[in-house]
Amino acid sequence: MNFDIKPIFNNNLEAILQNKINTKTKPIGALGTLETIALQIGMIQNTDQPSLKNPTIVVFAGDHGIAEKGEVNPYPQEVTAQMVYNFLNQGAAINVFCKQNNIDLKIVDAGVNHDFGVTPGLIDAKIDFGTKNYQDKPAMNAEQCSLAIQKGADIVIDTHATGCNSIGFGEMGIGNTSSASLLMSYFTEIPVTECVGSGTGLDTSAIKIKQQILSKVYQEYTPSSPLEALAAFGGFEIAMIVGAILKSAELKMTIMIDGFIVTAAFLAAYDIHPEVLDYCIFTHTSGEQGHKKMLEFLQKEPILNLDMRLGEGTGAAVAYPIIKSAVAFLNNMASFESAGVSGNE
Amino acid sequence: MNFDIKPIFNNNLEAILQNKINTKTKPIGALGTLETIALQIGMIQNTDQPSLKNPTIVVFAGDHGIAEKGEVNPYPQEVTAQMVYNFLNQGAAINVFCKQNNIDLKIVDAGVNHDFGVTPGLIDAKIDFGTKNYQDKPAMNAEQCSLAIQKGADIVIDTHATGCNSIGFGEMGIGNTSSASLLMSYFTEIPVTECVGSGTGLDTSAIKIKQQILSKVYQEYTPSSPLEALAAFGGFEIAMIVGAILKSAELKMTIMIDGFIVTAAFLAAYDIHPEVLDYCIFTHTSGEQGHKKMLEFLQKEPILNLDMRLGEGTGAAVAYPIIKSAVAFLNNMASFESAGVSGNE
Repeated sequence: MNFDIKPIFNNNLEAILQNKINTKTKPIGALGTLETIALQIGMIQNTDQPSLKNPTIVVFAGDHGIAEKGEVNPYPQEVTAQMVYNFLNQGAAINVFCKQNNIDLKIVDAGVNHDFGVTPGLIDAKIDFGTKNYQDKPAMNAEQCSLAIQKGADIVIDTHATGCNSIGFGEMGIGNTSSASLLMSYFTEIPVTECVGSGTGLDTSAIKIKQQILSKVYQEYTPSSPLEALAAFGGFEIAMIVGAILKSAELKMTIMIDGFIVTAAFLAAYDIHPEVLDYCIFTHTSGEQGHKKMLEFLQKEPILNLDMRLGEGTGAAVAYPIIKSAVAFLNNMASFESAGVSGNE
Repeated sequence: MNFDIKPIFNNNLEAILQNKINTKTKPIGALGTLETIALQIGMIQNTDQPSLKNPTIVVFAGDHGIAEKGEVNPYPQEVTAQMVYNFLNQGAAINVFCKQNNIDLKIVDAGVNHDFGVTPGLIDAKIDFGTKNYQDKPAMNAEQCSLAIQKGADIVIDTHATGCNSIGFGEMGIGNTSSASLLMSYFTEIPVTECVGSGTGLDTSAIKIKQQILSKVYQEYTPSSPLEALAAFGGFEIAMIVGAILKSAELKMTIMIDGFIVTAAFLAAYDIHPEVLDYCIFTHTSGEQGHKKMLEFLQKEPILNLDMRLGEGTGAAVAYPIIKSAVAFLNNMASFESAGVSGNE
């Protein structure tokens, strides 16, 4: 599918926004990163009075063939499905943070190795019961990859139709730091071993084994496009997030990028349409070691550095109030003139 | 006045809290700093079900003798009073962020060089119409310093009586980065020149002049106690925050420490009662360069690093939702057992 993503250019609006920021009752630049975010959201929404409407986080869950053996993941594969139920029962971290910050939360079965039947509250976008193990064959075929991207985009279209203009993505999938490491290596050209980390909690010797396994896998594939890389390394939830990011940018939404896995999906989206970067706010640096290198590659400094490494979109959910603060000061602070405050001399 | 501040020891509760954190449906440690904050607030409140009640930020405003000449401050002294009116009219950054995050805001005249008469919404704790210029004589006398500490403590007592258990402090005072630099040098023994920064926006050559002026001032005083240092270098708003911090710790409140000025006040409180550290959460690193060194001195990593340098307590107000997230996950996330999720192998 094609995405029509416009780069953001509007020198006139940019000057208006910068002047509005500079004349607020504070020293120039004194709100730091909040000023950068306010400017960016104004530019995305093409207005000097931006607003964050119906903020939503969509969590995509999928399983990974490689996780069945347990060589790269300390938690067993069934935890993916168990955590989906935990999301639906409001028990996970992402539920707590979304509730706290008035963020709508959607849960999507992108390809969990479990038959959920008809489960209220779960969006069924299942591509298959988990990906294939890329130690043997590509995680998915080209049709599955396209379908996943399409389904991710469709979910964003539905979300946008409810009035949402600010969206973040999360993921759940035992084994998905391995896919993210492989994709990271492909898109950044950083050697695989440097892209591998402890995931949900591997110790040093287990990380070495994970490095060896994934280095071997990486050598067996020579993807010639972002879609081939996604198909080779998976997973369904990551491909779906790629489609979701691209569609969100097309719809001129503010996109909150979470941690390691979501940024791996972002790297694919960025490779396909570099303009997508203009619409994205990087919400936190994950404790998963490769994430810092991804952000260096993108030359982006995220909002939070709290050593979180939980996934689920929790970084985006916890950072959301900061983004809200940026929009709030832009709209609601007095100017030097309106408040009758003297300027600097 | 004396403060009765208890160090926090409770090995049994600490183990209970840590176990509660570790059995939530997430990998061990995956919520990073949020876990540290949750543990700390549980320990402060002596419970494994802590809560943040009536969060409040108190902004203390005061003027500084040195600012009358305009050598160390790009904004004129009257901006202090003008900004107090801006606070009362809901136009300042701290108003916007407190409103966003449901934080009560109190504004205190600690010693502004302006007669506010009877102004609704303003707490009158005026010690004098600004401090003396410490280029000539101590900023205040010993009685004024004690009175300021007492008044700061009294305001906290009143706030606590309304059911508040979480409190932050802000300040407004043209020239107060100079006082903070002098106090920083006294308490950390870092040379004055390294404690001086651009304040509300001095350029490089103006910073050099500020360094020279403050180095000369520093050499003229040899305070032999924290109170003598506070009296010598001011200001009224800083001394009041010292009393407020100490009383908050005595009352076992969670204290949100803001940026450069408030941390200078914290350094005085910490020198008087080191136990106060247990009650404090450092909310952000200011863009004012000395603040990073203060935090290194204290070996504390704050929650936010957004290059903000506005004062008013804005760092605390913007960081508050993150503290709320810490308490929320501790109280509301499911455990592996309650959610029926498998643990790691």
